[in-house]
Amino acid sequence: VQRPGSGEDGIRHTACQTVGGSKTNINKAAFSRSHCDTIRNRKNALKKYCFSDPFGLISQYKNILPKKSIYHGGIAMQKLEKLYEGKAKQVFATNDPEIVMVHYKDDATAFNGLKKGTIAGKGVINNQMSNRLMAYLEKQGIPTHFVKELSERETLVKKVSIVPLEVIVRNIAAGSFSKHYGVEEGVVFEQPTIEFSYKNDELGDPLLNTYHALALKLATPEEIKTIEDYSFRINDALKAFWLTCGVTLVDFKLEFGRLSDGTIVLADEISPDTSRLWDSKTHEKLDKDRFRRDLGGVEGAYAEVMQR
Amino acid sequence: VQRPGSGEDGIRHTACQTVGGSKTNINKAAFSRSHCDTIRNRKNALKKYCFSDPFGLISQYKNILPKKSIYHGGIAMQKLEKLYEGKAKQVFATNDPEIVMVHYKDDATAFNGLKKGTIAGKGVINNQMSNRLMAYLEKQGIPTHFVKELSERETLVKKVSIVPLEVIVRNIAAGSFSKHYGVEEGVVFEQPTIEFSYKNDELGDPLLNTYHALALKLATPEEIKTIEDYSFRINDALKAFWLTCGVTLVDFKLEFGRLSDGTIVLADEISPDTSRLWDSKTHEKLDKDRFRRDLGGVEGAYAEVMQR
Repeated sequence: VQRPGSGEDGIRHTACQTVGGSKTNINKAAFSRSHCDTIRNRKNALKKYCFSDPFGLISQYKNILPKKSIYHGGIAMQKLEKLYEGKAKQVFATNDPEIVMVHYKDDATAFNGLKKGTIAGKGVINNQMSNRLMAYLEKQGIPTHFVKELSERETLVKKVSIVPLEVIVRNIAAGSFSKHYGVEEGVVFEQPTIEFSYKNDELGDPLLNTYHALALKLATPEEIKTIEDYSFRINDALKAFWLTCGVTLVDFKLEFGRLSDGTIVLADEISPDTSRLWDSKTHEKLDKDRFRRDLGGVEGAYAEVMQR
Repeated sequence: VQRPGSGEDGIRHTACQTVGGSKTNINKAAFSRSHCDTIRNRKNALKKYCFSDPFGLISQYKNILPKKSIYHGGIAMQKLEKLYEGKAKQVFATNDPEIVMVHYKDDATAFNGLKKGTIAGKGVINNQMSNRLMAYLEKQGIPTHFVKELSERETLVKKVSIVPLEVIVRNIAAGSFSKHYGVEEGVVFEQPTIEFSYKNDELGDPLLNTYHALALKLATPEEIKTIEDYSFRINDALKAFWLTCGVTLVDFKLEFGRLSDGTIVLADEISPDTSRLWDSKTHEKLDKDRFRRDLGGVEGAYAEVMQR
């Protein structure tokens, strides 16, 4: 195990470095030095850095549709009854039974709901970041629930039945791993770890292994294999992506869902709510740990990571 | 999932039934009906039932050596300094650096040491039962640390470096599984589960998965594969063994060790301290849960299961 920034594991690098040597297909030109210099001016940062929509996946749809009538594939989509309200999101039915609309809120909770608060603008950032990352992962061959971003806070996604397994992939010891296993935060693993928790609020989302998941009939062996395979591939892709932004991906949570035909797709969100993101040089936390640990500057950190 | 005793899963059976259809090589003749009839008289039960040493592995050594001078392979073995004292056992060095002597105590603890007590005669039963089961497992091709029983409470075992992973194999929901995952005690799994805990008193022996174990460098991938393979084979063998005694094997804990050449062998003990054993007909508990839950009759249950 090595500590990040030791210079031996390739993690130490300057912000805006390109992905040289990575196996993933990131468009290196989009992250060039001149691009980064522009960003350093902190002008129009949101539009120019990693989330400047370099793949053009979002902008082709955005701002061309009137707000009140939402179109998808040329058909008007109606926002119907609320199906679900969680800690950070609301989900609404649409007139397409296979598609739902997600609305991202600014509410934040931590420690299984014991700590509550609001992070101004979080919903906007999480919605846009999650959509861009999902679009990026689709390009890497990972099927996701993402359909179309409708507004700052609203997105159309495929309707799924959520697999009741929370997946956490870890590259560096932090959070519950450090606490449970007595390992100092920041220790880098030789290989990433994956773990499953039983998504069950009443039981406190307990850790389990794949034998437990099968005994509880939470998923089939094939589904678990697919989820593990996707999760490691997502880790490779996201690590490479964040590296180009001068951000180290410490760990992150994923949820998967089943489409009506049983296909497993990535669902929920990928954001600073569900990822630990550290500045690669300073190790400054750019994620929900600022909220969990009262470190202050929560809004700033979310905006910072979005700018990058 | 099915409940035991439903008659559909083959678990419901009368005591002393033979193992018909099992893949393991149990000597069926040793558990014949006439044998069982003898037992029902409850005379010399200890010597005649499952622990009557049907394979003759123990009796050839027992009671032929003077108490004070212990011989192994014709060489006098000296009991030297105490190397370790745990909840239920003491371990002493011998003049052979590859062999240690275990002494079984009557002390019992539960809930990570929060509950303490004594179960009279437990040490004698656990020593003898563990040795017989280890000898039986060796015959099934599982390498164990067992060398020779010296007395009621003392046994020579191979010296090992314990792999810091507690292994639990479960056939039926009970204990921490029921509590953590909200499953009623007694639900029978379609397939047995295996789980690892990090053997670390300070951290409270936390559950972990194989990725965690590798990240913490507790074992190599090959060692973990060997341990999983042995554990499932041990489960098959012990389930079949206990079935012949009218006892259902609910779950059990195993520990493995490395010999000086790195070979993985089964270590620690197999006893009512480390197994959940239920009467197959009445589901009466014949194990340490009687102590954990103040059910009374603890000594009786240990003696009962030893008789069988």
